[in-house]
Amino acid sequence: MEEKILELIEQKKFGELKNLLSDINPADLAQIFEEVEEKDLPVIFRILPKELAAEVFVEMDSDMQQLLIEAFSDKELREVMDELFMDDTVDIIDEMPATVAKRILRQTDAAKRRMINQLLAYPDDSAGSIMTTEYIDLKKDMTVDEAFDRIRQIGFDTETIYMCYVTDRSRRLLGIVSVKDLLLNPKSAVLSKIMDENVIFVNTHDDREEVAVQFEKYDLLAIPVVDKEDRLVGIVTVDDAIDVMKEEVTEDIEKMAAILPSEHSYFKTGVFETVKARIPWLMLLMISATFTGAIISGFEEKLTLFSGLIAFIPMLMDTGGNSGSQASVTVIRSISLGDIEFGDIFRVLWKEIRVAFCCSLALAVVNTAKLILVDYLLLKTFNGDTHAFAEIVVVCLTLFCTVIVAKIVGCSLPILAKKLGFDPAVMASPLITTIVDAISLMIYFGFASLILSV
Amino acid sequence: MEEKILELIEQKKFGELKNLLSDINPADLAQIFEEVEEKDLPVIFRILPKELAAEVFVEMDSDMQQLLIEAFSDKELREVMDELFMDDTVDIIDEMPATVAKRILRQTDAAKRRMINQLLAYPDDSAGSIMTTEYIDLKKDMTVDEAFDRIRQIGFDTETIYMCYVTDRSRRLLGIVSVKDLLLNPKSAVLSKIMDENVIFVNTHDDREEVAVQFEKYDLLAIPVVDKEDRLVGIVTVDDAIDVMKEEVTEDIEKMAAILPSEHSYFKTGVFETVKARIPWLMLLMISATFTGAIISGFEEKLTLFSGLIAFIPMLMDTGGNSGSQASVTVIRSISLGDIEFGDIFRVLWKEIRVAFCCSLALAVVNTAKLILVDYLLLKTFNGDTHAFAEIVVVCLTLFCTVIVAKIVGCSLPILAKKLGFDPAVMASPLITTIVDAISLMIYFGFASLILSV
Repeated sequence: MEEKILELIEQKKFGELKNLLSDINPADLAQIFEEVEEKDLPVIFRILPKELAAEVFVEMDSDMQQLLIEAFSDKELREVMDELFMDDTVDIIDEMPATVAKRILRQTDAAKRRMINQLLAYPDDSAGSIMTTEYIDLKKDMTVDEAFDRIRQIGFDTETIYMCYVTDRSRRLLGIVSVKDLLLNPKSAVLSKIMDENVIFVNTHDDREEVAVQFEKYDLLAIPVVDKEDRLVGIVTVDDAIDVMKEEVTEDIEKMAAILPSEHSYFKTGVFETVKARIPWLMLLMISATFTGAIISGFEEKLTLFSGLIAFIPMLMDTGGNSGSQASVTVIRSISLGDIEFGDIFRVLWKEIRVAFCCSLALAVVNTAKLILVDYLLLKTFNGDTHAFAEIVVVCLTLFCTVIVAKIVGCSLPILAKKLGFDPAVMASPLITTIVDAISLMIYFGFASLILSV
Repeated sequence: MEEKILELIEQKKFGELKNLLSDINPADLAQIFEEVEEKDLPVIFRILPKELAAEVFVEMDSDMQQLLIEAFSDKELREVMDELFMDDTVDIIDEMPATVAKRILRQTDAAKRRMINQLLAYPDDSAGSIMTTEYIDLKKDMTVDEAFDRIRQIGFDTETIYMCYVTDRSRRLLGIVSVKDLLLNPKSAVLSKIMDENVIFVNTHDDREEVAVQFEKYDLLAIPVVDKEDRLVGIVTVDDAIDVMKEEVTEDIEKMAAILPSEHSYFKTGVFETVKARIPWLMLLMISATFTGAIISGFEEKLTLFSGLIAFIPMLMDTGGNSGSQASVTVIRSISLGDIEFGDIFRVLWKEIRVAFCCSLALAVVNTAKLILVDYLLLKTFNGDTHAFAEIVVVCLTLFCTVIVAKIVGCSLPILAKKLGFDPAVMASPLITTIVDAISLMIYFGFASLILSV
């Protein structure tokens, strides 16, 4: 399909192209257009039917949108922008350089411009920033038939018609009624009798992540957004909620990997931008690791006496780190799914301690067996070391304790972070690893001092 | 609210309770019921209106469902099951112990039982396993008015009425028509003229993750599912797609933290089940870490000569591990978002090499400055060490190279894993860390041998 289209563009067979393109889904078209040469793009775009053109435009990434806007005449620009829903318009303006944004605003009428500026003013992560202002509003004394008339009249310009909002004269939300309710009730029924007054809604300043959670929890198609005076100002539709979920998950995963969240997709993020997102944590963790180094330095002279112990440092550090990050990542994800709250901290600790006990026992037993059977008897790596068995005991005891401490630290830090108002995701693997490293070495050298009587 | 309800239950004020409960959303009710004592649960459940009772039942977790089913008479069981949509019925049966499942099946009529058994037979992660079989089917020669009649007639028992499916006599899918299309077209229009023939659909055996991707990409409310003969057999609705997205993300995050995916939420997963999910990777990574130990052992004697080098091992290993996991996690997430494919491997490598160069340069410079200013001049930790500057050079060169190697390994392994048919998420932090640990030590000792002429 894609090749066929690029071929037709090459051959300038625009008539045939027009027929072919009209049948393709906007999301697919936007993807295909990424392969089209920049100079051809405005030409191809112009042959699309107006409505499809606007739908494709919304699906494009901002670079391509900007390219097209710059190629548009004022009239063309106005035509495309007129077809867009308010939330998409605002998103696009938000992404454009100031000069382009100004040009778009100049091409919209005063009422729409006022609305756009109002929406642009909502904080970046708020419900207000992702809502659209086009929805079906009904009055409570309308009949089902009158409601359908209203839907037929304004439905073409609203993003969803399936959820309708019943408001009073000062735009306060009284109830919702779905098109399903309308269809399954008699035509003469009055909305006040059939509307659902237990409306789930959000406020303009609520966090958009909170909005997405409502969709998951209540299986919604759209959620109404009200302002401080409880007036209905917009709705968020499920497709936008899904986008939020996707972005929030990416952000969480990035934070868990010690990366500052980035806004764009992989290839759209420049090298310098990527470096800026990655270097702060790397730097911080590198500096923190010097504390771990200091612990080793403090034990250096004794380590040279029992040099066999050095070789176990990576295994102990890694196993501790992995155990801790298993616990922290599980807890972080459970917090964001709403399964764990601060009040659960002791239940979590009690579970993790039992899990840790089983894990550390299994690991210690396997490791002891391996050290005795493989290292001591088979490979004879302890050859000549008179403290061989004492060293094995030190290593395995350390392993046992480290795993337990790691799980306790790993499960409790995210919960505490959340309680203190930080993002729990920041308490993920890398930070836990650094903390556990230091602890495991202290345990190691502690046991070594005791048992090897260093 | 919750306290009020529990209080009314305590006082057995069922009349008042009934009024109160009827106004609460099913998802919230299910949550409140978790706090109700087991013995009270069937009583409370029985006072709910039938339809609400079924909706609450679906939202409960399987332990509570089982408890209720066991308390139900056959008649009650049949009433609840009759209210459920097919996909929910199948999910519930799937979770129940065999005896309970059999009892449920005995209470359903033969046709429905056949359908349930058919749905239960689809592979666990397939589109067939999450679809529902209740949808609105229309014929292409119907008018808009006739379509509405059909919707009014069967709409009450279908999960969504907003997307309707036009099929031929052998149930082959010809097109889709939305209720929005129906409402915005004249009542006499014939469906074949207004239906959309470019239908996005999936097959029963497609991976459910693939289904979720279609929803994200095309902003769908429902997607039709066809069998091998292209016959329409069911639909997946957006709320179920959202559940799949959530579960798949949890699975990915677990894999990235070296945990085997678990099915239940945190507290629903037993201690032993959690141990089973965590121990395999811990064990494997512990064993792998002994290779890192072996590298140290091979260098042990020389390390005792330059004992200052030991203290830098954790910092080098951690920084390498963190750098690698940043790259791997970014690439894994981008693969699952569809931003990176195998063909992009060289673009990814080229980007990561440039990012790595900037990061490692910054880290090395800061570390050199820190070692000279803080450690050497201020704290005088190198006191008496005649090789101080040579050691600093070794550490910082190793740091520089390790970060670059870590990023290269981190970004390429997930792409290669994907190509080989493995889940890229498995190539995340812990595995990368272990690999990078070994490499960083080899680089470290390599430079040490060269520069310190050990």
